Formats: sequence, C-alpha cells, structure tokens
Amino acid sequence: MSVANPAREMPARASIEPIVRLTSPAMGEVNAMILAMAGSNVALIPEIAEHLISSGGKRLRPMLTIASALAHGYSGDAHVKLAASVEFMHTATLLHDDVVDESDLRRGKQSARMIWGNQASVLVGDFLLGQAFKTMVEVGSLEALRILSGASAVIAEGEVWQLSAAKHMTTSEADYLQVIEAKTAALFAAATEVGPVVAGAGPEACARMRDYGLHLGLAFQLLDDVLDYRGTAKALGKNVGDDFREGKITLPVILAHGRGTEAERAFWREAMEKGVNDDAALAEARRLLDRHGALEATIERARGFGNVAFSAAASLPPSEAREALIEVVAFCIERIN
Amino acid sequence: MSVANPAREMPARASIEPIVRLTSPAMGEVNAMILAMAGSNVALIPEIAEHLISSGGKRLRPMLTIASALAHGYSGDAHVKLAASVEFMHTATLLHDDVVDESDLRRGKQSARMIWGNQASVLVGDFLLGQAFKTMVEVGSLEALRILSGASAVIAEGEVWQLSAAKHMTTSEADYLQVIEAKTAALFAAATEVGPVVAGAGPEACARMRDYGLHLGLAFQLLDDVLDYRGTAKALGKNVGDDFREGKITLPVILAHGRGTEAERAFWREAMEKGVNDDAALAEARRLLDRHGALEATIERARGFGNVAFSAAASLPPSEAREALIEVVAFCIERIN
Repeated sequence: MSVANPAREMPARASIEPIVRLTSPAMGEVNAMILAMAGSNVALIPEIAEHLISSGGKRLRPMLTIASALAHGYSGDAHVKLAASVEFMHTATLLHDDVVDESDLRRGKQSARMIWGNQASVLVGDFLLGQAFKTMVEVGSLEALRILSGASAVIAEGEVWQLSAAKHMTTSEADYLQVIEAKTAALFAAATEVGPVVAGAGPEACARMRDYGLHLGLAFQLLDDVLDYRGTAKALGKNVGDDFREGKITLPVILAHGRGTEAERAFWREAMEKGVNDDAALAEARRLLDRHGALEATIERARGFGNVAFSAAASLPPSEAREALIEVVAFCIERIN
Repeated sequence: MSVANPAREMPARASIEPIVRLTSPAMGEVNAMILAMAGSNVALIPEIAEHLISSGGKRLRPMLTIASALAHGYSGDAHVKLAASVEFMHTATLLHDDVVDESDLRRGKQSARMIWGNQASVLVGDFLLGQAFKTMVEVGSLEALRILSGASAVIAEGEVWQLSAAKHMTTSEADYLQVIEAKTAALFAAATEVGPVVAGAGPEACARMRDYGLHLGLAFQLLDDVLDYRGTAKALGKNVGDDFREGKITLPVILAHGRGTEAERAFWREAMEKGVNDDAALAEARRLLDRHGALEATIERARGFGNVAFSAAASLPPSEAREALIEVVAFCIERIN
C-alpha cells in the first residue's frame, strides 16, 4: 500500500480535539444508545452503568470506531451501534478488572465494587457484555462480529495470563508485549478495524486500520504503565503506584530489573512476587526506575509503536478523519507531559 | 399448529437414555469442540476448563440443541458448534455464579473458585463466554446469533435481579417465575430454538421449540429448588440447604411464607433477610415446608410447565428425536424421586 505522504512526520500538535469535533454528531447518538443499552427494570443495572458512564472516560475507543468508518466514506448509522458495543465491551472489562485487581478507585471515583460489591460488579459486567453482543448482532455484519467476538476472547485470555504466569519477575519484555497486545491493543485494533468493515472497504484498508489500532493500543498501554509511576492521582483517576502495589509487572519494571544489579533484582522479586510493596518500597522502586532510565525507555518503545500507527493513518486518503486519527496518536503519546 | 397426537399423555417412562443415544454421534464432536475451545497457551485456562468439563455435568443443554436440530431433519454440522457454544455459555455462568454465591461445591467437587480463586474464575468465565461468541459467529447464522446473544443479556439481568430485589421476602411467586425464566429458562429456550433455526425451519417451528425449551427450563429450575431442600449432597453435587444458607428465596420458600402464620413469616424474614440460617434454622425451614406442602406444590407447578413442554414436543412430526425430546421432559420432572 502506497504511503500518501511519506515525508510527513508525527505532528507537534497533540490534541484530542480534532477527533472529538469530527465524531461529535455520531457520538451524541452513541451516548444515547449507551444509555438505552444500560436500561433495565432491574434498578441496580442502570445505577451501576450510570456510575461508570458519568465518570467521564474519554470514550476514545468508540470515537476511534466512528472516525475509522468516516475515514472510509461511511455515511450510514451502523457505526454508532458498533461504537457503543465497543465501549460496553470496555466497560464490562473495567468492572471485572476492578474486582480482580481489588481496586478502590476508577477514574477518580470510588470503584463500583467498593459501592455495590464484587458480586454486582461481576454480574453487571456480564450484562453489559451481553448487551454489547446483542447490539452488534443487530448491525448484521458477520465480519464485524468475527472481529469483535475474537477480541473478546483474546482480552480475557490476556487478563488470565497477567493473573498467572506474568506475576513472576522472569517475565520478559516479549512476554509482556504479548500480554498488553491481548488485554489492551486487541480492543483498539477491533474498534478501528470495524470502521472500514462497515464502510465496505476492501481487505487492505481493513488490515491498515487494524494495524493502526493495534499499535496505538500498545503505545497507549505503555504510557499508562509509565503514568502509574509518574502521574498524580488526580490526572490518573486512580492511585499512583497501583500497579506496584498489585504486583503488576509492567514494562518499566521489566527494564529496571533487567538493567539492575543482583541486589536490585532481589528488591524487585521481593516487591512483585512477595508483596513487599509499602510506601518505602514504592519510593525505592521509583528511584530504581529513574536510575536506569526505565520510564524514558518505556516512552521510547511507546513512540516506536506510535510511529507505526501514525504511518498507517498517514497512508489514508486525505480527509478530516485522517487528520483526526493522526493527531490522536500524538495526543496519546504526549499526554505523558 | 395442530397437535399430532392430542390424546397422548406424558409417558410413565422417564429416562435421559433416548436423547443420549440419539445425540451420541454429534455429542462426540461437541465434546471434541469443547476441548478445542478451552485450549490456550495460558495454562490456567485449560486447567480450569478441564476441571469443569470433567466434573460430569449431564450436558443436557447441548444435547437439546442437537436433538432439536435433528427433529427438524438437519443433517449438517453447524448444530455441533452451536451446542458447544451453549454449553460454554452455561459453564461461564456457573463459574461466575460460584463467585457470586460464594459456593464451595459444584457437581460434587470443590468449586473452581475454591481451588484457583475468585479472580481466575471471573476471568476464565469471561474467556469461555468470548469463545462461545466466537464459535457461534463461525456458524454464520444471524438469527442464531440474535437468539443466543439475547439470552446472554437476559441471563445476566436475571442474576442481578436475584442478587438485589429478589432478596426480600416480599418477592411474589410471579416475581420469582420471572427471575428463573431469565436466569435458567432463557438458555434452555435459546438452546432448543437454534436447532430449527439452523435446520432452516419456519417461524412456527422455531416458536414451538422456543416454547418447549422455555417451559422445560422452568420445570427444571423448580425441581432444582425442591432438591435443594430434599436431595442428598451426593445426588445434588452441592450441599443440601445451599439456597437457604445463601438467602436465596425460591418458590418453596415463597409458598411456605405465603401460607404461614405471622410467627412463621417472621422466621422466614429472619432467615432470608437477616441471615439467621444455621442448621437449626434449616431444620425448622424444612419442617415448615413440609407442614404447608410447599415442596409438593412446587413440584405441581413444575409438572404444569412440563406439560406445556410435552405438548410442544408431542406436536412435532414423528421421529426418534421427537420421542427423545418428550422423554427428557418426564426425566427432568421424575428425577425428584
């Protein structure tokens, strides 16, 4: 596939505004559909859904679905249902993740499980997932269904992996990239691939948008990993150091461990495998991450993936949607600053 | 729709053998597919799936899907994928139910959550559900997808309802029937409806098999409710009195409460709403259920639903599959003895 503008570089501007503006009319419909899908005579369901919906996620994934469809000239309304389904798949995952990670905070608010309990979080997550499938079936595209149902299985597989094998300091960088490809990037990839699918674009166009989403998702997750050590609770919407306290081995930790002395490696094993992760340990972890430039190196990896996503978007035919998709890559990477 | 043999009555014989024999070749393929769907490089997934698969459920639901397809002259192999998907939907629900109910036993073995923890049970349940959707998408029938994805949302909705509103002794018999229609009968209905759908039968034939499965599922659940007070741990594969200890208000309790004195009603409120449910309370509950004939009355309700299922099956064109579907109704009801 020829690159439309091979000399072009990642823009210095980095704003989510262009995609917000581009997708605004369709996102109005997506938001209405999300409320309808969360409707139920069982009061607890809209209550919990409303808590999550109103807690102000950026809705990046459904915006990507809408923008990807628009970038391929789509003018129908099936993308709205697919975008709402993608957001519900994501929301269901968040509900279950908070139960698995025993998280207290989500997007700066008490997590659903702290208010309504683990049991309700598990079951309402199941309901949202069921509604997501039901809604995407209504669209009637078997190809979109194949992509989204495939992502659903892969996401859960990645989560189980993280829960089990990936709790050991023997986890390699390659292992870790496979985990985040499954648990984060697969949904980004599905979200952007169904855009051209529903627009009736050919297999090359679909593969390009899959590449775009996959690499954007990888970059996005790596920057989340960095922010967990560098951000503030306010900006994060969760506690700084949550990954550390949960014994989640992320790329910064893998890099610092790999570059560390024997004593430092022993520290990481104690912290991640044996749960020695109090505030003093977190301070020491941050010192070691700094010492080995592990956060910077992680950001570099993220930039690499971001460049792949950028190239995929830059090769789209010129349109407002192309510009929005390009700038969102820069936004995801520059939010570190 | 005319009833083929209106004078016919529910058979005195009540065996699962005819449906086991009828579906045996296809169920061999279903079992192989189930093993393949549970495959993953993440070792924990096949480990937990194997634990559930080998624990000897009857596989009633997938057998019903196969028999329903055969009853409509189906000779392809799409019913195998749908049957395996139905069983995975059921298995995923069991994993999540055990977490929600804090159950120790499932089918006479330690429940997965007791061995691998709640976290793994939640995530592996999500994986199985994802695999179920992926597999049913491969069949390529949008109508079957509509039916099964609809059931998925309804099942979760019923579970949330049971968790919240249905924990109060104000629950009426009608409320309760709605809960079990959602959490149990909807999957039976979907399992039997997709049989004629995949066989290309008309809407009347599909509606008949939906009726069959729905009413069989209602009867099945009501007898489960009775067995929880009357069975033995060995026959049940779970502890007798589990529903009582979990404060699950089932039809026997609703009937005994409705027929009880003021003092007895106070006893039920203490037990179900305030958790006064030790062994002495369980003994008292069983005494009250006996006194008011609540278990017998529940069995009568189940027979009523069973008769509707029987009539639906009896109106099928004559075939070995029809006989198997008829006899499985009697089996589900007579297993109380």
